[in-house]
Order: sequence, then structure tokens, then C-alpha cells
Amino acid sequence: MQFHLDSFRAGDPDLSDPNSAPGMLADTDALPAEVDVLIVGCGPAGLTLAAQLAAFPDIRTRIVEQKPGPLQLGQADGVACRSMEMFEAFGIRERVEREAYWVNETAFWKPAPSGDITRHGVVRDVEEGLSPYPHVILNQARVHDFLLDVMARSPNRLTPNYARRFLGLDIGADFVTARLDHKGAVETVRARYVVGCDGARSAVREALGFKLQGDFANQAWGVMDVLAVTDFPDIRKKCVIQSEREGNIILIPREGGYLVRIYVEMDAFTGRGARAVTLDDVIGAAQRVLRPYKFEVKETAWWSVYEVGQRLTDHFDDASGARDPRVFIAGDACHTHSAKAGQGMNVSMQDGFNLGWKLAAVLRGRAPAALLATYSAERRAIAQKLIDFDREWSSMMAAPLKSPQTPNGVDPAELQAYFVQHGRYTAGVMTRYAPSALTGAGAHQALATGFVVGTRFHSAPVVRLADAKALELGEVLKADGRFRLIAFAGRGDPAAKLRGLCAFLAEAEDSPLRRHTPKGADIDSVIDLRAVFPQGHRELRLEAMPPLLLPAKGRLGLRDYEKMFCADPKADIFDLRGVDRDQGALIVVRPDQHVGEVLPLDAYDALAAYFAGFMTAA
Amino acid sequence: MQFHLDSFRAGDPDLSDPNSAPGMLADTDALPAEVDVLIVGCGPAGLTLAAQLAAFPDIRTRIVEQKPGPLQLGQADGVACRSMEMFEAFGIRERVEREAYWVNETAFWKPAPSGDITRHGVVRDVEEGLSPYPHVILNQARVHDFLLDVMARSPNRLTPNYARRFLGLDIGADFVTARLDHKGAVETVRARYVVGCDGARSAVREALGFKLQGDFANQAWGVMDVLAVTDFPDIRKKCVIQSEREGNIILIPREGGYLVRIYVEMDAFTGRGARAVTLDDVIGAAQRVLRPYKFEVKETAWWSVYEVGQRLTDHFDDASGARDPRVFIAGDACHTHSAKAGQGMNVSMQDGFNLGWKLAAVLRGRAPAALLATYSAERRAIAQKLIDFDREWSSMMAAPLKSPQTPNGVDPAELQAYFVQHGRYTAGVMTRYAPSALTGAGAHQALATGFVVGTRFHSAPVVRLADAKALELGEVLKADGRFRLIAFAGRGDPAAKLRGLCAFLAEAEDSPLRRHTPKGADIDSVIDLRAVFPQGHRELRLEAMPPLLLPAKGRLGLRDYEKMFCADPKADIFDLRGVDRDQGALIVVRPDQHVGEVLPLDAYDALAAYFAGFMTAA
Repeated sequence: MQFHLDSFRAGDPDLSDPNSAPGMLADTDALPAEVDVLIVGCGPAGLTLAAQLAAFPDIRTRIVEQKPGPLQLGQADGVACRSMEMFEAFGIRERVEREAYWVNETAFWKPAPSGDITRHGVVRDVEEGLSPYPHVILNQARVHDFLLDVMARSPNRLTPNYARRFLGLDIGADFVTARLDHKGAVETVRARYVVGCDGARSAVREALGFKLQGDFANQAWGVMDVLAVTDFPDIRKKCVIQSEREGNIILIPREGGYLVRIYVEMDAFTGRGARAVTLDDVIGAAQRVLRPYKFEVKETAWWSVYEVGQRLTDHFDDASGARDPRVFIAGDACHTHSAKAGQGMNVSMQDGFNLGWKLAAVLRGRAPAALLATYSAERRAIAQKLIDFDREWSSMMAAPLKSPQTPNGVDPAELQAYFVQHGRYTAGVMTRYAPSALTGAGAHQALATGFVVGTRFHSAPVVRLADAKALELGEVLKADGRFRLIAFAGRGDPAAKLRGLCAFLAEAEDSPLRRHTPKGADIDSVIDLRAVFPQGHRELRLEAMPPLLLPAKGRLGLRDYEKMFCADPKADIFDLRGVDRDQGALIVVRPDQHVGEVLPLDAYDALAAYFAGFMTAA
Repeated sequence: MQFHLDSFRAGDPDLSDPNSAPGMLADTDALPAEVDVLIVGCGPAGLTLAAQLAAFPDIRTRIVEQKPGPLQLGQADGVACRSMEMFEAFGIRERVEREAYWVNETAFWKPAPSGDITRHGVVRDVEEGLSPYPHVILNQARVHDFLLDVMARSPNRLTPNYARRFLGLDIGADFVTARLDHKGAVETVRARYVVGCDGARSAVREALGFKLQGDFANQAWGVMDVLAVTDFPDIRKKCVIQSEREGNIILIPREGGYLVRIYVEMDAFTGRGARAVTLDDVIGAAQRVLRPYKFEVKETAWWSVYEVGQRLTDHFDDASGARDPRVFIAGDACHTHSAKAGQGMNVSMQDGFNLGWKLAAVLRGRAPAALLATYSAERRAIAQKLIDFDREWSSMMAAPLKSPQTPNGVDPAELQAYFVQHGRYTAGVMTRYAPSALTGAGAHQALATGFVVGTRFHSAPVVRLADAKALELGEVLKADGRFRLIAFAGRGDPAAKLRGLCAFLAEAEDSPLRRHTPKGADIDSVIDLRAVFPQGHRELRLEAMPPLLLPAKGRLGLRDYEKMFCADPKADIFDLRGVDRDQGALIVVRPDQHVGEVLPLDAYDALAAYFAGFMTAA
């Protein structure tokens, strides 16, 4: 963490100084008549977007929610590695890690010849080295709490406005006017942008006239969070359990050491309709699958029955023809699917993370409004892939056991192999944006084969030069709206190409740092340069480095000592990520942690062109 | 973290349910007439003690402080590895790690032939493997904040009563009556125990008639926390700097990336008296030592000049003859020394940690009052060692450079060697309590050479059997007043001796678990058994383990799955800590994380005798 830049200040460094500009504080229940962004819905997509926008004191954001207060008990619980990487950027990763259940292994069970279930395989849940952070399980309400905390400590003290039901909107020339019901009275808010994060029954989507397309598969599942006494030995491991005749279970241990979530197939009950299914039906079904083990439910924290469906809207925004988008939808409002792959909360949060920095860039005059079209382009493709994956995984999970009578059923080994094969996907790290103004075509991918253009920056260990701290390089990718240039030095005298890059960035007329950084702002405030050296940290002389890597910042002109890193000999980032040791490589990382481009260190024109492609001159 | 044992409950699991018993909530400014423990002083010793006592809803604790509110800016900043281990027990380690500066390396500088300083050595600040946690630097006020947070979230919502000046006390037959000044009015509080944690000028110590014995060395030092611009390349590393003629500096980078603390010798100024020394004098002295480097102070957060002294009281409590102690003193109230070894806050916190569980055990009827005498016996010996170390280190730091003119001076290489040699001591892990009722004589030390009787339990990595989570075994040592039995299984069929131990503990008449656990309480509530197996976690069958290792607990009789661990093949705890693979070993760990005894797994009588030596039958 960096703080005390402009002055020493006692107290909690996560608590920002409050905005002193009139009318900017957003911790009141009264909605202002006009805002920059109005977010509808306090779910994972809306809160991630709000937490991101809260980083910018000059943006007037409000988030409204139909419910009277914060969520107490959510239905989503899986937090993929990729979401943990994003939480690190928001400063809440440690809190989630401490409180959550860690999914370390997944056990697979199948019917024994006796008809009882028997364990047939155990696999690591997440492949080694896939992410610095674990796959965890935590009540969605707690994830909300942490994001709300980020918002509340931000300069504008952003706090949701509860008890607001979205009624409709009018899209005008300069503003979108939203109508809200607040305890029977109608409020109107004029917003430059409106984002509907209001779930599968989204009223914002309705107002745009969009529909979720797709169908239900007529697979009914029961789900329950219970405190139970059992002799099932894998009760504290994630399990996929196929029974001979009683259907399948996905079992997911929960935080705290005692709670467990069970998804159980309820096909036998669908004749009565999902609404007629009782908790006892769900418990009974689970008990039959788990035979010969006893499973005695002592308390049920939550339960439900639902039908699996995969649906998607055609559009994620209201753009038409040449008109730039003004209204967006995100999360369940534009894509719904089953819960069993643990993707819902994660994909929705990434929707919010993708949109947040783009809205900020446009509102702050750093990019033309055309940038906003990339949200729908990028995220709808991801949602489509999710829908396809979920359809396949759900149908495998609902299929009967393969047998002479059911030759189209699923073999346990096949199910386990599919799970392992798709582990990278479910961890959230396979998301790859297609080439666009923001994402290069990968012409120089060979310079750094492990930083794949379009995917999220894959962190690896490094040692900071100035203070010898071992850390994950990904920790520098904070959710502050900044682009980052990660310059890997190649062999040289020492790092001659890196010196050339620094000279270009510091001095050249067409340097993107000079072109896009507002006058008077810190030199790293728009594009943040970091360097990684192949040498050990005791082999380099800090004092011999280019001044751009020790920039003077803030009111006092203090130097920032956290720009330079060295390979950690115990886990060399050049080896781990396939960085060319001779030539080095320059990785452009977007504010949402995705790799925008990989370039040679001396590709000055290409670098300038990348930023000029979607950013305005300051 | 474990929670939801008695029922699912939404919200923050660190926030305990408030005590429903009348009069127990301690979040009011009004002091009750009677308490169990009255703590005087909100420093590191007092707050650690308060945080520990706050774990027990049945104990009425209050802590009073002369200042009108919480500390904003403290003078202590070093947090030794040992303190981080204790913070883990209080659930605040991650927050400290995230916010603090990590001391990774220490650089040593000496005069070059030119007279300017030059670097002559760099060493790891903490030896590899000494602790799972780093040596860090964090403003004392933030450490206070975290401990205050632990107290505020406890069942009794313990909150300090500020603006109370201690006036005096009377020791009666059943109670100690303390008199406090509160805004001009006198309050009296009757307490079963009073603990003076009120600093070097302790009024509680005065009331007992004790004196700090020792002398000042007439070494004056300036200290300042500054935001500065410099070209000194090691400004973000801890440095020990010896100049040729201008004295010495200890430089300690601070949290946040910019702030730095500098201790600089001011002997040249002592003729004027420490009070006459100005900030400009201190800055000027630092600038002269740091030549040829520039050092321009932009802002001073805090500065002071002090004289080094080492002083200690003869007694840490008021016991006399056969009378058990009723009044204690802790922290700077009983030992003061220089700040430069970074020990002050750490040793004071360990005073509080040592006393806390003992007071709780006596107040809750689990141990006779005689246990309390061990506080003074154990902690005074530690304070004496600290005084001796500090005297030696301070005089080395104040000595001139060795030269033909100053043959008694200190050679730079000698200083560096001394620093490295005492690294374990300054990390806080060399504290070793002498044999007593609480601490065995080490007759069976050979069974586990790395768990030294009397020292703190040295954690190592393990894998939890039930959920395959890799963690530090030390994480189980929470600050909850419980003793722990860590049973390392030897070779066997499998673990035959461990099974014997479990049978003894569960069934035998003289089992300490049966003898000391109150009726109706969870079987692990007084003495908490954990097992560690040499096998990999996939080689063992959870369902085949003794029931005592899967105990039914709480209102619902849920099983606790967190009692069994396996060696981590990547870092085998049996190898790392020298545990006998044939015979196994039983490690008794005290509530303050110190090893009380090492025994064979089948030494049932010795185990029973250990606990009977200081605990009452339930």
C-alpha cells in the first residue's frame, strides 16, 4: 500500500479524505437531481461498478436498490481465482481469503457394485500456478459487504440509495432521465449514463425492450445451505456425486467450517412442478444419493428449487447506428444460467469491472464516447461462451449414469476428465477479448508467450528493487483506472532498450505519457510504467536507473520507489511467463487487468498508436 | 476461521453476538462500581491484555486511559515476527501485513577512505524459516486501532474509558479499590485485579512504591519521522550507518512507501541539554552522516530527542509472602530501554499476553490464584535479558568507529556480525521461560527438538486432512485461553500410540480433558487436541480416525473437522521440527503459544500431572 504521499496523516489509510467539493458526497439518502452515472441494482455487477467508479472523486455516481437495505443472505457463493485477483485490486482480497472456505480439492463419487456410492477420484480443484490466489466460497452478502466498504471509504463516501424501484427511463439528447419509486413517491434523476444491474428480472432491460433469449432445460434442482451431521468422509471437500438411480449431487463446503451447500437433482419431482417441492423432498433426495452415509440436517440456512436455463440478450447497451450507448445492462440482467459451475457472481463482477474504467475514462475526458461500445462487444462474447459452457456442463450433470440401459449417459471418468479440462475456464482466467482498439492482434506475442494478448495479466512472483520485498507483480494492478506498461528488460548494458524506452516516454513529442497525462498531474497518473529486470535484486544499482523509474510525485515531489522489480530466482518470471531474455518485452495492461498489447521495447510508434487509438490528447 | 457452530448467522463473523447477561456490556463511558479486572493505560501492554480478556464474556474488564481518546500517532513502530504470530491469534495479522512496511533486508554503511559513507554489507533482516510472518514496521497507533477493534467486536464490546487519571489504590481483603480522576471528579472502582500498563511514569507503580532502577547512559539521540527527498539509494531499506566523525544513524523505512524514521546520534549537542536540541539540529546531524548523499526533509511527522537508559523494577506485582498478587504492572511501567532495537512495543505486548490468560483462568475458577505468581517470575527474567541486550546494542551503536585513535570503537564488520547473531533475539523468538509448574524441564525434548520447551511454538506448514487446505499449524493457536495438545503420530498401525492417547483422553478417569472440562462444555473448550500425521493427506482415511478427533460440538452436535493435519511433502513438519518419526511426540502448548511440555504420546500420568500442577478440577 502507498500513502502519505502529499503529507503524513494519522489513521486508517484505506479511508480517503472526504471530497471537499460542494455536492460531491454521496452518503445521503436524498438522491440528487443530476448525476454522471446511475447504477440500478446492488448485486455483484452493480457493486463492482460502483466500487470502481468510487475511485474517482470527480465522478458523481449513485447506486439505487429496490430492497430496503444491504443483502443479508445471498445465493451465490463461489469466488473464482480471477475474482480474487480483482479483489486484490480493490484491497479486499485478504479479507475474503481469511473468511472464506478454500476449495482445494474436488472428489468424484460413483455407484459401487453394491449400489452405494464410492469415491473414484480426487483432483486438485485449481491447477498449480494458475493464479496467486485460491478458489474460495463465501456468502455473496459478505462479498457485497466488502465492496460496500470500499465505496464507503472512498472520497465521495458512496453509499447505496435503498428502497428505490426502477420505473422507467427516457433517453434525451444529453441525459437519460430515470424514474424511481421511493416509498410511493416518484423521483427523477438525470444521468449521463444509466447501468441496469438489476438481475434476471431487470426493469432496465425491460425499459430498453430487450429480452433474455433462450430456454429452460426442464432440469429441476434443489439447493440448500445446511448444518448437518454426517459420516460422509468428504463433507469438507467439493464433491461431484453420481448415484446409480437417485440422480446427482454437487456438494460445496461453505465458510466457517460447518455449513455445506448441496445441489441435488430433483427431476423425479418436476411432475408436481418446482413450486410444489418441499425442503423435506430436497433433503430426502440428498439422503438417497448419499447412501450408505447418514446425512442428518440440523438446521437449514436457506433452500430453493430452480429450473436450469441459459438465456442471453442480443444487446448489452442501447447504442443504435452511430449513436454511442447511454444505457447499459450487466450481470444477470443480460445473461442467466445455472449456478452449478459457480460462474454467476464472477462473470457479473467482471461485467462491472470492464465497464467501470471505460465510463470513468469517457466522463473524465480521457477517451471519446466511442470507447463505450467495447463493453457490449467484449462482454457479450464472454456471456455467450458462458451460456454454451453451462449448457454442456448442466446437461452432463443431469445425465443418467452410463449403462447398457442408458448408453447416452455419462461415465464417471468422463465427468471427472471434463471437470479437469475446464478448470482454467471455471477459474475465470480463460476470458480473452478479441482484437479491437483496446486489444492488439498479438503480432509480437512471441516476446512474452505467458502474457496472452486479450487475457488477464497472469501474475508471477518478483522482488522489489528498492526494499527487497517479495511480492506478486499483479499487486501493482490496482483498480484505479490507470493503464500500466510493464517493461521487461532484456540483456543489455544493463537494459539499454529499457533506457531507450524511458527516454522516449519521458521526452519524445509523441510519448503517450506526455500526450495523455494532464498538465500538472503526476507522470504515472494515466499510464503507469513499471520495469522488471532479469537480474537478482542485489545485482542492480538503484541509483543508476532512469529517472522515470524513480519519479517525483505529489505536492512534495517525493520519489516513488515502487516502480522497479527483479526476477525472483526461486520462481523466475521470465521463465514462468516465457519472456524473451534477449529482447525483453513491453506488456500493456488495461485498467481491468487484461493485456492490451505485447510489444518490443523499442516499438515506440506502435505504443503511441495503441493509446492514440482510443484516448484523447490531454 | 470457524463460525456458524450453533446456528447460521448472517453478517460479519468477527462481530460476536453481544452478551445478553445484564450489566456485562462494556461500551459505555460510565465506569461500573465493581469489575474483575481494571487495566490502567491504553498502550500496547494494556490493549493486548484487554483484547485477551475480551475473549471471555463472563469476565468484567475495563480499561482506563488518561488521554481523552485513542492514540493518533505513536512513537513505537517495530513489530517483530513474534508479535505477528500473536496478531494471528487475535485475527489481525493480515491487516497489519497489508498496511505495514516489511523489513526484508538491512544494509550496513561505513566511512569510505574519502570520508563519505559507503555500503559494506547487506543481510536478510530475518533468517529464513524463523517465523511464518515478516518483521514489519507500523505506526503504534494503528496497532492500537486493530486491538481496539478486537475488543469492540467481542461479546462485551469492551471500549476504553478515556480521560481517567489514576490517583491511587487501596488493597483490601477481597478487592483493590482504585481512585480515578475523571474531569475533576473522583471515581472509585473496586476490582479483583488491577494492572498498571501506564508507561514509564506509571502511577500504579508509584502507588505500589516500586521504582525503576538503572541509569541513563548520557547518550542522546534524535529521532524523526520525515517525508524527504534523497539520492541515498537504500532509503527504502533498514540501514545501520556509521560515519567517520559525525556519529551513527539507524534508518528505518515506514509504512506507505514514503515515510522514513531516522535515529541519529546527538552526542555533540548534549552539552546544551537534550531540551535545547532543535529539529534543525537533528536534520543537520542526519545530513552530515549521510554525506555525500543529499537529504532534504519536506515534512516532519514527528520528532524527539531522548537519552538512552535501561531501567527495571524489582517486582512486577504486589505479592508479599504467601499473599497472591492483586496488582500487576506491565510494559514500560516495569522496564524501559532504548527504542533502537525495536523491542519496546513487542515485549510489552508479550507481558499482556502472558498475564491475560492467567487472569482469565483464575477468575473463571480453572486455576488457583497461585498461578498468577508465574507472571512476574516469567516476565521479569525476560525484561532483565532485554535490558542487558539493549545496554550492549546501544553502547555499540553509540561507540565511535574503531581507529588507531579510538581503539575501543566498533568496527563495521563487528557491528554487522552482532546484528546477524542477535537476529533471533530481536525477532522475539528466543524468549524462553524457565522450568516451573507451567513449563517442563525438557526431559523428553529429544522427541521434538524444534519445539523447545519454554519457547513459543514454532509453526510449520501442514495440510488439513478434511479439506486439504495448506496452512501454518500455528494458526490453530488462537487467543482463546485454551491449552492445546499437538499430538504428532509416529509410525504405527496407523498411529497406534495416537489412538491410545485418544482413548485415554476420552475415557480414562484421570484424563485431563475429563478432569478439567466443565460439565456440558465442548470437549475441546479447555484443552484442545490436534493431531499431525506423517503421511500425505490423500493416504489417510478420515473415517477411520478416533472419534475424539472428529468431536461433536455445540448446540447441534456438529462435528469439528479441523483437528487433523498431515505433513506437507514440500516442507515436512517432522523434518523441520525434528519430531521423532518412530515414537511421535506430544506437544503441550500454553494459551500464550509457549511450549509447556514435550512428552511421549503414552506418558498419560505425566500429562495428567502437568495439568493438575496448576489447574483445578472442573
